Amino acid sequence: MKALNLLPPAAVAGLPMAQVDTPALLLDLDAFERNLDRLQAAADAAGVKLRPHGKAHKTPAVALAQIARGAVGICCQKVSEALPFIDAGVADIHISNEIATAPKAALLARAALLARMSVCVDDAAQVALLGEAAREAGSVIGVFVEIDIGHGRCGVSGADAVLRLLESIARFPQLEFRGLQAYHGTLQHLRSLAERRERSAIAAGRAAEVVAALSAAGVRCDTVTGGGSGSAEFDFSSGVFTEIQAGSYAFMDRDYGDNEYGDALRFEHAMFLACSVMSTAAPGHAVVDAGLKSLAVDSGLPGVWQRGHLKYHQASDEHGVVHADGGPLPMLGEQLLLVPGHCDPTINLHDEIVCLRGGVVEAVWPVSSRGLSR
Amino acid sequence: MKALNLLPPAAVAGLPMAQVDTPALLLDLDAFERNLDRLQAAADAAGVKLRPHGKAHKTPAVALAQIARGAVGICCQKVSEALPFIDAGVADIHISNEIATAPKAALLARAALLARMSVCVDDAAQVALLGEAAREAGSVIGVFVEIDIGHGRCGVSGADAVLRLLESIARFPQLEFRGLQAYHGTLQHLRSLAERRERSAIAAGRAAEVVAALSAAGVRCDTVTGGGSGSAEFDFSSGVFTEIQAGSYAFMDRDYGDNEYGDALRFEHAMFLACSVMSTAAPGHAVVDAGLKSLAVDSGLPGVWQRGHLKYHQASDEHGVVHADGGPLPMLGEQLLLVPGHCDPTINLHDEIVCLRGGVVEAVWPVSSRGLSR
Repeated sequence: MKALNLLPPAAVAGLPMAQVDTPALLLDLDAFERNLDRLQAAADAAGVKLRPHGKAHKTPAVALAQIARGAVGICCQKVSEALPFIDAGVADIHISNEIATAPKAALLARAALLARMSVCVDDAAQVALLGEAAREAGSVIGVFVEIDIGHGRCGVSGADAVLRLLESIARFPQLEFRGLQAYHGTLQHLRSLAERRERSAIAAGRAAEVVAALSAAGVRCDTVTGGGSGSAEFDFSSGVFTEIQAGSYAFMDRDYGDNEYGDALRFEHAMFLACSVMSTAAPGHAVVDAGLKSLAVDSGLPGVWQRGHLKYHQASDEHGVVHADGGPLPMLGEQLLLVPGHCDPTINLHDEIVCLRGGVVEAVWPVSSRGLSR
Repeated sequence: MKALNLLPPAAVAGLPMAQVDTPALLLDLDAFERNLDRLQAAADAAGVKLRPHGKAHKTPAVALAQIARGAVGICCQKVSEALPFIDAGVADIHISNEIATAPKAALLARAALLARMSVCVDDAAQVALLGEAAREAGSVIGVFVEIDIGHGRCGVSGADAVLRLLESIARFPQLEFRGLQAYHGTLQHLRSLAERRERSAIAAGRAAEVVAALSAAGVRCDTVTGGGSGSAEFDFSSGVFTEIQAGSYAFMDRDYGDNEYGDALRFEHAMFLACSVMSTAAPGHAVVDAGLKSLAVDSGLPGVWQRGHLKYHQASDEHGVVHADGGPLPMLGEQLLLVPGHCDPTINLHDEIVCLRGGVVEAVWPVSSRGLSR
């Protein structure tokens, strides 16, 4: 008898939430669907396309729900990450990142035989790798030149550098220039709404300058792709972005929830990590069965959902210590829901998302691209 | 054609390290084997058993290498985590943690039909769950009472509390009291050798007091299990621990490497995260293709191996920014080796460990318990 066969499934349809074995990643389908509808409606109203980021969820069922509402496709951060989405029927995937080694270029070129694919470049050497790989595979790869609009990570600065890369791209008939990528990650997490608005305007202004200079040089950018969940409203009205790459809006983690929204587009917490109290022997705290292997803590510790007096205080590999302030500690065996600090790397720890509606399991979605970082 | 079938294996035997696609988790087999030999020799010399922690590696091939050198079995932190080890032939597994819900007790009781299993308790309610589950499954579960020796997480305080739990355990004929677990996690990471020595002595002293009080009450503790990679030397000579649960010693992460060792038992960095430079467009830094989804950052950012002037500066989902101080930045496409900040949650991000000897791939080991946190 195989021991692993003793392990029951994470959950089955019809199971009440309280009976889901922990730790388990839960999705409140009603809140999730409202989040998808809300951003799609705002994009439609602005006449801007939505290309949600698959890195946030790595889950084909989520991508299909986004596309069913009008998304034009998805982004992925890595080529291998895109493959399960292609298999699930996603027909248009942009790799919102550079690749600089031959095995990755070869993989992308072969994937481009199965779906419409594009990728970013910020160096002529990347262009050459892609061009050779596309020729070898007999495919066409879409290319976006990434420009730095203040994030200070990848991307070239200014229209002249873009024009030089366009010359490189033009040497390879199987590379197709599709526009610019302009992404500013850090501004997404500025807490103040006013500051996000101001910094988004500056970032969009930088992108607009490059677009105008290219236009003056006779180069049209059909697509300018970028933006995110913290700046979407400003990106929509920027006049420069034609396509928004938001990801976290579908789930809303604790970090994005800590942003100030005011009258801006806001989303609901839809994703939770269910855990159970496993020890109450020590005075003054309870210990839950979810730690670093169930929750990413790069953006801080999780919140405790609807139990305002409880605080998740400290994470080790498989333990979390919970304190209480002005109320009782939870009881041994009790289930708690945590709001992950950062949804993207938290989802990447899990093989399945347990989907609930009205507190009852409706489906279990495989996180098919989990761990695919090549 | 299935897109996922386009993805080549992480590596194949005979491949030079420089050609391993990135990100990839690498194990230097020579250094790893020296680490295993070193701790086993110290345990043998001290007449103390070694029960290495499977949570550190989640990899049956690692456990089998530890057992081949004399380890009496392994620890796991979760019941589901133990299952792939049982399937690989590990015959004796201690769950070094409490479980407090019926599904987990049932799973453990059924696993105990396939291997010698034990678990920790610090509450009579856990004992009752285990006793019922063992009766239902027709198995025997070994039980360790966890005592708190200063860590302040799980475990009861003092011999009286242990004696009360022994009364509960005695009510269930299929539960077998096997001894005490006494673990102090935080002292493992104290940087100063003198401080680790002093704090280890205090912690061991607390355990010894409980053992003595139990002995005076006529209760013999055959096994006192605990200890870790940062305190192993002191645990060996403590006179109270009969079994050491070290895990990280096999790999040595950056965090443990930052400890001061002096004349104490020390281990070599054997585990690395291979990444590639994907962008050098911005002045003053290079961007590598490994971030939060390839490296756990709860214990700080990774070090850059054998490139002292390079510093991994900032991690996002799939990016790392590398700065140079007093030397050149790495080139586009260049491979770098990173020393993970914390090996346990880093390994839990990966499905495979690429094992090298002399810079050439010798094997690829599946991380079979990855993600099994139930």
